Amino acid sequence: MAQSDFPDLTPLLSPGSVAVVGASQDVRGWGYGARLVSNILHGGFPPDRLFLVNPKYDRIGDLPCYKSLTAVPGPVDLVLIILARRWVRPVLEECAAKGVKAAVVVSAGFAEAGQDGREEQEAIGKLAADSGLLVVGPNSLGLALPRERAMLNAYMELPLKPGRIGLVSQSGAMAYASILSPALDRDIHFSHVVSTGNEAGLESIDFINHFVKDPETRAVCCFLEGFKRARRFPAVAEAALEAGKPILAVKVGRSELGARQAVSHTGALTGSDAVYQAVFDQTGVIRVDYPDDLYEEANLFAQSPQPGSDGLAVVSTSGGLGSLLADMCAVSGLSLPPLSEETTSYIKAQDYLLVYGEPINPLDIRGQGATHLPEILQPFVQDDRYGVLVVALGISAVGQLSREVADSLVDLRARIDKPLVVLWVGKKLDDQGGFGEEDGFRILERNHLPVFYSPEKLVRALGNFIGFHRFRRAWLEERSQAETDLPGIDAAGARAFLAGRDGTLDEVDSRRLLEFYGIPAPREALAEDLEAALAAAGEIGYPVALKVVSADLPHKTEAGAIRLGLAGPAELRSAWAELMDSVRSKCPGADVRGGLVQEMVRGREMMVGLSQDDQFGPMVACGLGGVFVEVLKDVSLGRPPLSPAQAGRMLARLKGARLLEAFRGQAPADVEALKEVIVRVARLALDLEDRVAELDVNPLMVRERGAGAAAVDALIRLKPR
Amino acid sequence: MAQSDFPDLTPLLSPGSVAVVGASQDVRGWGYGARLVSNILHGGFPPDRLFLVNPKYDRIGDLPCYKSLTAVPGPVDLVLIILARRWVRPVLEECAAKGVKAAVVVSAGFAEAGQDGREEQEAIGKLAADSGLLVVGPNSLGLALPRERAMLNAYMELPLKPGRIGLVSQSGAMAYASILSPALDRDIHFSHVVSTGNEAGLESIDFINHFVKDPETRAVCCFLEGFKRARRFPAVAEAALEAGKPILAVKVGRSELGARQAVSHTGALTGSDAVYQAVFDQTGVIRVDYPDDLYEEANLFAQSPQPGSDGLAVVSTSGGLGSLLADMCAVSGLSLPPLSEETTSYIKAQDYLLVYGEPINPLDIRGQGATHLPEILQPFVQDDRYGVLVVALGISAVGQLSREVADSLVDLRARIDKPLVVLWVGKKLDDQGGFGEEDGFRILERNHLPVFYSPEKLVRALGNFIGFHRFRRAWLEERSQAETDLPGIDAAGARAFLAGRDGTLDEVDSRRLLEFYGIPAPREALAEDLEAALAAAGEIGYPVALKVVSADLPHKTEAGAIRLGLAGPAELRSAWAELMDSVRSKCPGADVRGGLVQEMVRGREMMVGLSQDDQFGPMVACGLGGVFVEVLKDVSLGRPPLSPAQAGRMLARLKGARLLEAFRGQAPADVEALKEVIVRVARLALDLEDRVAELDVNPLMVRERGAGAAAVDALIRLKPR
Repeated sequence: MAQSDFPDLTPLLSPGSVAVVGASQDVRGWGYGARLVSNILHGGFPPDRLFLVNPKYDRIGDLPCYKSLTAVPGPVDLVLIILARRWVRPVLEECAAKGVKAAVVVSAGFAEAGQDGREEQEAIGKLAADSGLLVVGPNSLGLALPRERAMLNAYMELPLKPGRIGLVSQSGAMAYASILSPALDRDIHFSHVVSTGNEAGLESIDFINHFVKDPETRAVCCFLEGFKRARRFPAVAEAALEAGKPILAVKVGRSELGARQAVSHTGALTGSDAVYQAVFDQTGVIRVDYPDDLYEEANLFAQSPQPGSDGLAVVSTSGGLGSLLADMCAVSGLSLPPLSEETTSYIKAQDYLLVYGEPINPLDIRGQGATHLPEILQPFVQDDRYGVLVVALGISAVGQLSREVADSLVDLRARIDKPLVVLWVGKKLDDQGGFGEEDGFRILERNHLPVFYSPEKLVRALGNFIGFHRFRRAWLEERSQAETDLPGIDAAGARAFLAGRDGTLDEVDSRRLLEFYGIPAPREALAEDLEAALAAAGEIGYPVALKVVSADLPHKTEAGAIRLGLAGPAELRSAWAELMDSVRSKCPGADVRGGLVQEMVRGREMMVGLSQDDQFGPMVACGLGGVFVEVLKDVSLGRPPLSPAQAGRMLARLKGARLLEAFRGQAPADVEALKEVIVRVARLALDLEDRVAELDVNPLMVRERGAGAAAVDALIRLKPR
Repeated sequence: MAQSDFPDLTPLLSPGSVAVVGASQDVRGWGYGARLVSNILHGGFPPDRLFLVNPKYDRIGDLPCYKSLTAVPGPVDLVLIILARRWVRPVLEECAAKGVKAAVVVSAGFAEAGQDGREEQEAIGKLAADSGLLVVGPNSLGLALPRERAMLNAYMELPLKPGRIGLVSQSGAMAYASILSPALDRDIHFSHVVSTGNEAGLESIDFINHFVKDPETRAVCCFLEGFKRARRFPAVAEAALEAGKPILAVKVGRSELGARQAVSHTGALTGSDAVYQAVFDQTGVIRVDYPDDLYEEANLFAQSPQPGSDGLAVVSTSGGLGSLLADMCAVSGLSLPPLSEETTSYIKAQDYLLVYGEPINPLDIRGQGATHLPEILQPFVQDDRYGVLVVALGISAVGQLSREVADSLVDLRARIDKPLVVLWVGKKLDDQGGFGEEDGFRILERNHLPVFYSPEKLVRALGNFIGFHRFRRAWLEERSQAETDLPGIDAAGARAFLAGRDGTLDEVDSRRLLEFYGIPAPREALAEDLEAALAAAGEIGYPVALKVVSADLPHKTEAGAIRLGLAGPAELRSAWAELMDSVRSKCPGADVRGGLVQEMVRGREMMVGLSQDDQFGPMVACGLGGVFVEVLKDVSLGRPPLSPAQAGRMLARLKGARLLEAFRGQAPADVEALKEVIVRVARLALDLEDRVAELDVNPLMVRERGAGAAAVDALIRLKPR
């Protein structure tokens, strides 16, 4: 990753001095100017490093008020702007002139308000790019920087403390109202909170990059509408993976899926939401659907050591809850290793548990077990098969979770190096409708022990937690392996071959381009007339397929320009006559190069394609041929470059992946060969990005294990030069 | 439904007098006996109708204590038993002798505790059946009957008020700790709470039936492990549907899916969880996955009028939240009708909304709109396309939801006849970590306006709410239509045909049985020798299929006993020779009846099957043939009898349902004919339940629309007589 792609945000996120232009003492209406000043002062930012600017006032409260930014004595790092739209750009120009490093534009009425606003916003973007000024917004709700005691936002006053989670959101309401506020209710704290608004200058990726590098931040939360310079993202996500910091994202846009149109028949499957999902899958980004999952799961990561293995130990005070959790873990693919013999004897010896029969995992400890949790958990702490300990409390007879039980868990957590998670499903409020000081779950929260209140969210979070660390281990392992270069790639040859070509390549040229990348084809020959076709078929061996070759007939099946399984010369003769007649009558103007005589390849029918995404550039697609792609939209995407392991994960995500295994008397498919084709197409996509717009290998026939694959049909469309 | 299947629970759920056997003042240990007495007294049950029994005491508190149940003067309706296991049955016998109507056994240590306990529990079940005593438990945590002020349970004291939701759960901890307690925190109240425990006598279905008939109860919540007499359930579920009361169920057992074994190759797809799901789907039962969804969704139903249409109007104070909700609604199939012209003009005229461009649904009303909600919602109230109004509040600048906003919504709700639902995603706690008296969301809760705190749960609940009412309308409509009897069914003939038969029927006999139920077959003839086969093929017309008929070869393809697409006499001749040789060499002992010459039928390959479920009896399965069934387990189940509309819904649930539409140049499939086959198989399943164990029509070829279907292959296994 070229770090020059990312500005240094220190002056913005650790500002030595701050000015508020548009500061006010008028709290009428929405009173952003007054609320901002009040938040900054109540938040504890040193008044001597705060400068208020407003020509209407001499003083606001105890502080002097300057007539203009220029009139502020000495340098200013960060300027907050709360002015009517027309004044924003002049103040930004003043910032640039004064040597200010960063500005946050709270003012709204830009791109969201029509054409004039859009133009004004573009002008701000240009100003930022030209001057190097770091600009947040416009239409930002501001920043909260607890470590700096800098509450630089116009939201309500909040009890912020420095935490371990970075939060960035385009929407200010989502950041402050839907994520930060309820998280604070749960004593979940943040290192930074940023509302990026319309993103004329800085965008979410810049902040994610900062959080990944910030040593205090252990998890990153994003509420994303979309990236602007998306191609910078994968490198940031990989840096996060390397650092072991999860990026958790709510990404709006699921319902856009399928809204885009594309020329080739796989293009429709690569709508932008699917592309985001593929990039997230490939880089270990955890996509969650809901704001509350965001902070609950980030907190689990931020407060827990890495799990040493993938198994869960679950103890539950309710048998019913235990059954439910067992079901949910099974459905989510979470493993609950059975108790070892030693643990079984140990648990049976705990008289208060009243164990009937053989104890299992989840372990039903009844209400009685709640007061003995550290003893009960002890064998699970020692057994390496258990990566995470889960305590599910819905205490049947006691009701409230007691201070003693909570203290025992806080104490246990301090003594062990394993993630410990609590599920509390019982009553929360006291008779007055509030929480008591002594309520156990509040004690757990205040001590930053991850607590969940819904089995659903618990299991989903554990799935993401264990899944992230498993993915990361595999990713680090793969990366450590020496890269073996692919043999048989002739990029220069491919480029020379394309030099004289344009538009859509016919099947023969498409396959020729694939050959430069070592992608195997069936045995075949292009015949200009029937005699040549018969000779070629004799060479190749029957049965053969016959196809009309013409760049004007991209979809041969529909055009009736293909015959399969021709058993001998007689069939080939009549097929040749029929095909040529049919093409001449159906597409009289088509430019026909001849007939392609091709070996009949048996195997699994797959497709491998390549298309261009507006945001992320070239994307490789793979899927099972036929109804799986057409009915179930069962396609996996990957962003090049792709390793064989990544190609393997793309295949594993297919709903019909099982078809590649031994099936209905067929031996397993040659998955290694299939992965290699995907890897080679990805390489082609990057090498020839300036030339190739789309590529569709369909079908790619994958033979039985060891016997390779063959691109039976291919279609390539070039970019206009 | 035979109401005699269901006991009258009035003496249990509206008891005139209650005795506690095993009452105690000893609160040491778990103190169930003391806590139960304390709960009953604090709950407000009249002390003069409460009788305590324990030979150890003369008095407990202010109340006399009797030496035995028999010593209690006068009649007793309901007895609660908290004694060591060995004393339970004697006291139940005493109950029966004294004319007690009902008993709740809180004592544990029965079936959950091994063989002795299981036997003791069976003895209790027999005693209940013989005496007519209504028995709840053993291992029940008791009942809560707020309308009767009867808190007959050993859980902590809870602030219960009479509500509109009936709750039944086998697990006491789930009922009291995981559902009731957090629901009360939200001011969601119940008409009855029942923990059925081990269900030696009464089971969940008995209580569901009571709730359905109870006029005060508007929604039913269940936490189910499994039914005991499951076949009583569908009629209860249909009565609930008729009454417009939803049954919401968490059902443990998802991970059992696939655990059962079955002989035929579809049997493995009908594991019991799938059967429960099918019965639920068919009768409108709402299956939820989590306890918190149970009470939140039940509350939505209990507190809302029926929606007049399926559309949602969503207004949101945050644009980001609006986008998220739009996505989630789209993914869930919820409709957001666009604003009418009148509404558009009206909204644009509301200056405080600062509408840029064209207002859409979800409508972004910004923080400013929160104080004008009744005005903003007015056009949506009047527009019949909007069945439900949704107000999403995550107020960006104000933070807390104010009393004024809440009051305005409570007031609006009282004036309209449309469901109104609120989503609050902001801060809930005040500086002291409690709720303020003035907090808007608490005001909404206290006024029983449905409030959600997670977009996820809101959208899921709305999907179930609108889906239930839509399903119910369709169900009522279908039921009102005169039933047209199926022509061409000869049940007596089928029975006579089966009279001499046993074991597995061969293909010819299987198809013969289908004919008695008017299920169409391809043109075909059974030929004893080659000459007869050639004659038959001449009659039927080539191409034909040839199959060896033998009950000893149920799986012909594997046995190599089938040849398809024989184009003329020469191919038929050589196929006959090959097949007969192949069978003779591979299965030398097989009893071969001859060769079946069959028309080649073109169309979609489907399967329709029938198997027996341990709990629900015969179940009909349908699916797309080939990989859809084998790889994706894409099968729908239905419980007979089935109407064409129900068969249509089974088909609609298939993942590959789109394959039945016009597809890849094929005309749409004859879905009417397919539905009719399903209906006829369901009829056969009921008529011949005592004889037919399994049936598998695979493939059923479904021709193009109007051209019918044909059972190309069939296999029937009879029950042992």
